[in-house]
Amino acid sequence: MNTCTMYHRVKKHTHVLLHPSKDESRWDKVINGFIILLILLNLLAVVLETEPALAEKYGIYFHRFDVFSVVIFSIEYILRVWSCTYETKYNHWFWGRLKYMVSWGALIDLVAILPFYIGMAKLFDLRELRLLRLLRLLRIFRLTSYMKSAQVIVNVFKNKFQELLISLVLTTGLIIIASCLIYFAEHNAQPEKFGSIPRTLWWSVVTLATIGYGDLVPITVAGKILTGIIALAGVAFFALPAGIITAGFLEEIRKVKKHHIIKCPQCGNTIDLDLHHEH
Amino acid sequence: MNTCTMYHRVKKHTHVLLHPSKDESRWDKVINGFIILLILLNLLAVVLETEPALAEKYGIYFHRFDVFSVVIFSIEYILRVWSCTYETKYNHWFWGRLKYMVSWGALIDLVAILPFYIGMAKLFDLRELRLLRLLRLLRIFRLTSYMKSAQVIVNVFKNKFQELLISLVLTTGLIIIASCLIYFAEHNAQPEKFGSIPRTLWWSVVTLATIGYGDLVPITVAGKILTGIIALAGVAFFALPAGIITAGFLEEIRKVKKHHIIKCPQCGNTIDLDLHHEH
Amino acid sequence: MNTCTMYHRVKKHTHVLLHPSKDESRWDKVINGFIILLILLNLLAVVLETEPALAEKYGIYFHRFDVFSVVIFSIEYILRVWSCTYETKYNHWFWGRLKYMVSWGALIDLVAILPFYIGMAKLFDLRELRLLRLLRLLRIFRLTSYMKSAQVIVNVFKNKFQELLISLVLTTGLIIIASCLIYFAEHNAQPEKFGSIPRTLWWSVVTLATIGYGDLVPITVAGKILTGIIALAGVAFFALPAGIITAGFLEEIRKVKKHHIIKCPQCGNTIDLDLHHEH
Amino acid sequence: MNTCTMYHRVKKHTHVLLHPSKDESRWDKVINGFIILLILLNLLAVVLETEPALAEKYGIYFHRFDVFSVVIFSIEYILRVWSCTYETKYNHWFWGRLKYMVSWGALIDLVAILPFYIGMAKLFDLRELRLLRLLRLLRIFRLTSYMKSAQVIVNVFKNKFQELLISLVLTTGLIIIASCLIYFAEHNAQPEKFGSIPRTLWWSVVTLATIGYGDLVPITVAGKILTGIIALAGVAFFALPAGIITAGFLEEIRKVKKHHIIKCPQCGNTIDLDLHHEH
Repeated sequence: MNTCTMYHRVKKHTHVLLHPSKDESRWDKVINGFIILLILLNLLAVVLETEPALAEKYGIYFHRFDVFSVVIFSIEYILRVWSCTYETKYNHWFWGRLKYMVSWGALIDLVAILPFYIGMAKLFDLRELRLLRLLRLLRIFRLTSYMKSAQVIVNVFKNKFQELLISLVLTTGLIIIASCLIYFAEHNAQPEKFGSIPRTLWWSVVTLATIGYGDLVPITVAGKILTGIIALAGVAFFALPAGIITAGFLEEIRKVKKHHIIKCPQCGNTIDLDLHHEH
Repeated sequence: MNTCTMYHRVKKHTHVLLHPSKDESRWDKVINGFIILLILLNLLAVVLETEPALAEKYGIYFHRFDVFSVVIFSIEYILRVWSCTYETKYNHWFWGRLKYMVSWGALIDLVAILPFYIGMAKLFDLRELRLLRLLRLLRIFRLTSYMKSAQVIVNVFKNKFQELLISLVLTTGLIIIASCLIYFAEHNAQPEKFGSIPRTLWWSVVTLATIGYGDLVPITVAGKILTGIIALAGVAFFALPAGIITAGFLEEIRKVKKHHIIKCPQCGNTIDLDLHHEH
Repeated sequence: MNTCTMYHRVKKHTHVLLHPSKDESRWDKVINGFIILLILLNLLAVVLETEPALAEKYGIYFHRFDVFSVVIFSIEYILRVWSCTYETKYNHWFWGRLKYMVSWGALIDLVAILPFYIGMAKLFDLRELRLLRLLRLLRIFRLTSYMKSAQVIVNVFKNKFQELLISLVLTTGLIIIASCLIYFAEHNAQPEKFGSIPRTLWWSVVTLATIGYGDLVPITVAGKILTGIIALAGVAFFALPAGIITAGFLEEIRKVKKHHIIKCPQCGNTIDLDLHHEH
Repeated sequence: MNTCTMYHRVKKHTHVLLHPSKDESRWDKVINGFIILLILLNLLAVVLETEPALAEKYGIYFHRFDVFSVVIFSIEYILRVWSCTYETKYNHWFWGRLKYMVSWGALIDLVAILPFYIGMAKLFDLRELRLLRLLRLLRIFRLTSYMKSAQVIVNVFKNKFQELLISLVLTTGLIIIASCLIYFAEHNAQPEKFGSIPRTLWWSVVTLATIGYGDLVPITVAGKILTGIIALAGVAFFALPAGIITAGFLEEIRKVKKHHIIKCPQCGNTIDLDLHHEH
């Protein structure tokens, strides 16, 4: 076995290790699990570091962990770019790698580590861009076992897109109408709180989504009666997405399950109801 | 080509441009998109103008935009009235146009611009009537691509009207019962807040719709236990509309999809399962 | 026509007028509508009279309306008792009327007017018992047109009773567990607010039903993380009744609609799928 | 009848009394009902005793009831351990009983009474462990009549586990994204309240679960617009579990109900539609 073959075998193994597939080996799982754990810890670190008390006390540890993560992610990124030529669509030594580097997955990986290097050069304060490491979590969906169920949910949203859009339009319409009505009912009684429609729009959203912070509360009789009517209408309107999504799920399930095959009692031949139906 | 034919061709083109249909041309789309954009910007302007800070600062721009919109809407209205005779049902030069002018669509268009002219004459302050321009948004539903999905939602509400009405009656009943009970539990402990059933009605609506502003909160043990029971009952009652609407969607989907036609593998005859079913 | 026949004809007409049926005449509708309107106005009067400001100002009108209502309801009650012998099951002149008087409908009618007469005798202050007139609203469901849809809702609750009960048990369990956990997380930080499990039970109900008054809010990190987990679990648990009720509606709809009759393509005989199925 | 037989008959009867089965006798029901009532009263006592006012006033009664319960539970536990050898799988006099003692049911029963004995020895203050008596409530599910409906709910959660997990991941993702966005919108305007992402995470959970305590409320225009968009997106995302669970219920119902057996009207042979279908 010469050096060239050795080189290719190492490249192949590197590529396989970094791209978990259905029949993944033990090392695949270990490396993949480690990377996902590191991404989750990065997310936690970025979130916790915004807390001034923690940033002051443990700042040095956050920085060290950041350096450690970026080193690992950089090595992973370089290995990915190096080994991508194993795939046929990226097999040119230069253009193939460039093509891989401008793919979505690789760009997300680059954006996740770039702010560190730019920040190190003291050019800008790009620390908040580290939040983009969050995007790396999308690779969880590379795990094949989660693909099928995720696909069902994606299909439901895709098939029902137009109906969900219309229910959004209806909901937005209800919010605007509610805002205008409550404005007329309350703006004399509470001029600072309900003094303009943009302010009552905030009230409508908070009320119709049933959040109810309590910062804006109608006090006039007309406003209260109106809120009662709007709240009851809102229950029906906000039940629309639930109804649409449930119907979508049932359609998805049926598509997968329905294979109706009847056996004729006389001749014994089978009739596949699905083949003969017009869907 | 004489003047008369010229006149009719212009009228026809004007009519076609203002009434987007399924096979709409590029100019149709541009004009229709422009009008819808103008309506949306009008909505935004009317909403933002109620904010005193903005009205003071940018008042002159709001006014100019208002004049501009009314001019465009007036031209559109006049062109619509003029070209409506192209349609057979409005083809009389006078009565046809009058008939068109008293149709819902034309009246909404008129009401949207009228307050400006009346206000200009310094007769009344009808600026708030401009909110009626909101009604013009209904023309979004003229876009044929949204018609089918919207129709499904309208059908669901229409078919399930009686069941939704009964669930409204049940919900209202629960609200009234809850108000009476909480009144007896709390009116001694908090006489100003829970001092009468009309006031506890407000509490019931805010609690059962799970808004929970926090302006009225029971403090007695009896009131709190009662709230717990009412809240759990409310979850079941407010699940009714969701259930009814979901069932409605599934029925609609089935109506559209079900065309069961079986072909016998032996004789080749078709059996329409729907024809032989009793629905 | 002698007096006796006259008497019976009057009784028959009185009975028919007071008991609206499917093929109701114009007078039936007028009388029934008037009684329902009077009940609704009574409900409104009883509710509004608890408001001290209104009671003081319009007290005399409330009292007059009360006298008027009781007179009408008393006449209606006497006529009902008198004419009930027209029905075969109450046809004895004394025992039949007594039997009618102890039926649920008649007892509700009596309870609705009794407090007035007892109160008039200055024996007790039973004014609050007038709220029982609310029960008379149940007669709305006598209107046959609302019966079928109401029956569907009743059937759903009846068929799904055990599943709804179990989801209630699960929800109650979640509420108790949440109360215990938040008690340990918060009772040192907020001893008056989260100082005992009965108090945190109130918090659990208000949080899990997503009311969120804001009177009790966790402030410790542990309490907030716990609330996050409980709130997400609560979404799944409180989706159970919605799921159960929706499934119930769909079963009801199917029961009514499903009549599968297939026609055999060879012999032309029909097969009723329902007759041959095991449900 | 000798002593030995007597001993076995007593053991058998003890065992039967303590393990209610389908064809339970009157004494079974009485004992079982008494034990469940005692567990419920224990739960109530443990919950109420955390209230300082009640603990001070009725402390002695709580203690007496605690002693009484533990005595009963101890007797029940000893009788269960003694009589378990009646069952074939525990029939060895020593190893069988040990095997029974380490089964889940027996361990829960032991844990429920142990804190009392340890606390009596003044070793630790383990009073709060009495909350574990709550676990004994699980025996309600031993009642066979509740088993079937509970099984349906368990099956729904089991079959839809992966889809519910993905909707949890999506919801968590939405919560994290909402937290990051609101942090950038609000942390300058309200530095103590929205000063770090961990704090805005709390806001996201409270807002997206539509609890809305009102302790953290956005005040900037950007924050309010963002909240509006997040709240509307949240309605669709939080409708996912409802849709998944409803679809799960309908699948469960279909599994139980569907037994399609057609009988041919000519030859009299039966066709099981299920056998010939591919599910």
